[in-house]
Amino acid sequence: VATTVPFGSSPHKGVRVLLGVLVGLGCAAAQPDRPKRVSLTRPRPGPAFDDVAARLIGQALVSRASFDLVADLCDQTGPRLSGSPGAEKGVRWAFERLRDEGFLVKKEQITVPHWVRGEETGEVISPFPHKLFLTALGGSDPTPAGGLEAEVIEARDLEDLARLGDRVRNKIVLFNKQISADGGMDGYGSGAKIRYGGAAAAAKQGAVGMLLRSLGTAFLRAPHTGSMAYEEGVARIPAAAVTAEDADLLHRLLERRKGPVRVRMRLGCKTLPDVESHNVVADWPGREKPEEIVLIGAHLDSWDLGVGAVDDGAGVAIVMETLRMFKRLGLRPRRTVRVVLYMNEENGLRGGKGYALAHAAELGRHVAAIEADSGAGRPLGFSINGGPGAEAIILGLAATLRGIGAAEVTAGGEGGADISVLGPHGVPLLGLKQDTRHYFDWHHSPADTVDKIDPRELALCTAAMATMAYGLADLDQPLSRAPPRPEAK
Amino acid sequence: VATTVPFGSSPHKGVRVLLGVLVGLGCAAAQPDRPKRVSLTRPRPGPAFDDVAARLIGQALVSRASFDLVADLCDQTGPRLSGSPGAEKGVRWAFERLRDEGFLVKKEQITVPHWVRGEETGEVISPFPHKLFLTALGGSDPTPAGGLEAEVIEARDLEDLARLGDRVRNKIVLFNKQISADGGMDGYGSGAKIRYGGAAAAAKQGAVGMLLRSLGTAFLRAPHTGSMAYEEGVARIPAAAVTAEDADLLHRLLERRKGPVRVRMRLGCKTLPDVESHNVVADWPGREKPEEIVLIGAHLDSWDLGVGAVDDGAGVAIVMETLRMFKRLGLRPRRTVRVVLYMNEENGLRGGKGYALAHAAELGRHVAAIEADSGAGRPLGFSINGGPGAEAIILGLAATLRGIGAAEVTAGGEGGADISVLGPHGVPLLGLKQDTRHYFDWHHSPADTVDKIDPRELALCTAAMATMAYGLADLDQPLSRAPPRPEAK
Repeated sequence: VATTVPFGSSPHKGVRVLLGVLVGLGCAAAQPDRPKRVSLTRPRPGPAFDDVAARLIGQALVSRASFDLVADLCDQTGPRLSGSPGAEKGVRWAFERLRDEGFLVKKEQITVPHWVRGEETGEVISPFPHKLFLTALGGSDPTPAGGLEAEVIEARDLEDLARLGDRVRNKIVLFNKQISADGGMDGYGSGAKIRYGGAAAAAKQGAVGMLLRSLGTAFLRAPHTGSMAYEEGVARIPAAAVTAEDADLLHRLLERRKGPVRVRMRLGCKTLPDVESHNVVADWPGREKPEEIVLIGAHLDSWDLGVGAVDDGAGVAIVMETLRMFKRLGLRPRRTVRVVLYMNEENGLRGGKGYALAHAAELGRHVAAIEADSGAGRPLGFSINGGPGAEAIILGLAATLRGIGAAEVTAGGEGGADISVLGPHGVPLLGLKQDTRHYFDWHHSPADTVDKIDPRELALCTAAMATMAYGLADLDQPLSRAPPRPEAK
Repeated sequence: VATTVPFGSSPHKGVRVLLGVLVGLGCAAAQPDRPKRVSLTRPRPGPAFDDVAARLIGQALVSRASFDLVADLCDQTGPRLSGSPGAEKGVRWAFERLRDEGFLVKKEQITVPHWVRGEETGEVISPFPHKLFLTALGGSDPTPAGGLEAEVIEARDLEDLARLGDRVRNKIVLFNKQISADGGMDGYGSGAKIRYGGAAAAAKQGAVGMLLRSLGTAFLRAPHTGSMAYEEGVARIPAAAVTAEDADLLHRLLERRKGPVRVRMRLGCKTLPDVESHNVVADWPGREKPEEIVLIGAHLDSWDLGVGAVDDGAGVAIVMETLRMFKRLGLRPRRTVRVVLYMNEENGLRGGKGYALAHAAELGRHVAAIEADSGAGRPLGFSINGGPGAEAIILGLAATLRGIGAAEVTAGGEGGADISVLGPHGVPLLGLKQDTRHYFDWHHSPADTVDKIDPRELALCTAAMATMAYGLADLDQPLSRAPPRPEAK
């Protein structure tokens, strides 16, 4: 039987797949910026896999176990920024929980950055006094103790900044770009680029400070933080995010053109020496090929404003509960399923890099890696970045999840920041795709709290993850390796 | 021509209205707790009034004047809590603006409470440390300088508190009731009652502090403040609102029953001696009966966390722009239309009471009062609390607003807090009814900012207010006086 497989909408990308001899196309390389939906339809795996999937879905939905895990993690630890007491509590919590339930678990040492937030205040000095609601970006240097006072100049984005040239000298640059929730050109990625590199870019043009319109999609005066970085040899100017409301206020004040808009900001944040921390790694050994590994990952660390319930306590619960369900149901696929709970995804990726280094010898036997780091919204399917034919296999496995609405497969992407480090080693990377329409309402803000999670939606995510992990770990032949790619940044 | 007029759904309330000889029913007295929709249909006023309404609607919608007013007010003054510099800037702004545009305007002196917020922090001490996001309720006494530390006990509402009896002794009572946006039994009013009297009620049972789940309908970790009061002879315990997220956290920690949940809160707020402030009153004299007055009111003061854009900068803009439109269009009804911008609606009602006292001699000639204090959402119509036949008149006038969806009339209510003081004097009271589905997302919180206002919806409110004010001021005969009612609290 031959099935016609239209890859995306470009007619020249059409390709025929013969069952048994799968010929795929590395879509990610062709269209690196725009993962595309794979609309291939092919027969689902047989009844045995359906039966496994049905048991996993039923088990996930018969309790609130995933929700209880993330609530317990967040309530016991609070925020878990790398280097903080909360992060260490998170490591201990995960390790002890998995150990006490009888899993093979270890803590793997890494070294992480240790940035701490201090007192932080902001105010408009002129033309009219106003309090500014702001928060330092992660990695920012502090202002002088007395604060930084300067005139504000507005830029939409980095391109707009370049156009302003010398006019930003001695000023605080306000990057004022509203991101959209649709993941398109103006999505979070476009804003994160400004957040990460904006201070260095502005400093090169002589700016003395940077303010960013919070990268969020709902606004009740809470600022969103996130990582930024300086460049070697460029002035390290303080950087903070203001709330959308305050960005709008500054915009209106600038529009009046009634004299300069002056702002004072005080940031007490600082970077301390690196500290020791850990990834937590737990194995569910395979019944036939325990040396071959399907990695399922999420990150334990969070930003410090909220408690990291959706980013990424939810992911931690999804992968931990996957292992617990395998155990409870006595399901043991051919290969090992390994949970990796990464430290330091948010501001350094030291956990991802450290894992790749420590496990360099066995990366050739990592047959796939799946990350859950898109919140707690209901599952839609998976992204896959693999070798020839990989998409078709994933589509076949995901088809089993059609009943819970999680059968969508897109080609491309990096799966998740932590596992992206494995890409250059040829490991096929999958990401759990979720409904993220509200994710950026809360992400990196004080509003990232347990109440934002719908237990039923999270349970569906666990069901999807468990089914895909089992399916990959139980394949006759592993997915073909991904084509060599340049080292991730 | 006779028209059958079914009042609400109770058949025994059916009543016939003869044109010219209107026979109404005091619905408010019959059902004081539940304003009811009047579904009477009657011929609209003639073409002349339609023409006036069309001009007012067109004028309101041809510009962003109402939005520009509220943005200008909020951007220039910031928060306007009674007694604050912002409140005084608000008085000056309104007075000068009206004076400079040629209106007859005065400042009328009143004395207002002067409560100031200080530093405020909260934290969970055990079973797990957490930061609490909280804010003092307006009027609260401070905690001791070192903070108040005590065990938390949860009550849903005042009835639940009573059931707890002695168990609240030496504890901090958390009132944890979620309000709904639908205005029903669990609406804002039910929560405001707890906020206002909860501390005194808890103190009578021996509690040492009070926490309130913020009265809001959307949650991104911003607390909502609002007024509370102590009772003579009852311990004055500190009272604060926590965010919905923190109330949920406390609830989960209490549910675990792993030992006491202890909290520390520090409130630096205090009540200073009363200070002088002002209502701002501007007249647009009537062409035939200038001594008869239709009052249109809103309040200048706001809470201190946001800038009072929806509560009640929007109302200020609605009534100010009504007067400006009359002037611009050369519309002068028979009677005087008076704008009253009240001070101290939020925490004392001194403006409303002061106005009634200062104008006692002319309250008999106040033919109606309309308040705009429900935010900036699109207009739906009016509530009316008047004498026999008043509802029918209002329904006739409001019918002219059918095209903008503002023809709904409900009988009962107090029109608004500021004008409620005029009720016992027989003044017919109207309230501008608006879409408030999102009002309590922002109300009394840091999120009450200018960006929450849709200029077009606000313009429609101004059109509705201007049309109704003109119609009432231009009637052949004024509305019948409201039946005597007990003095408002």
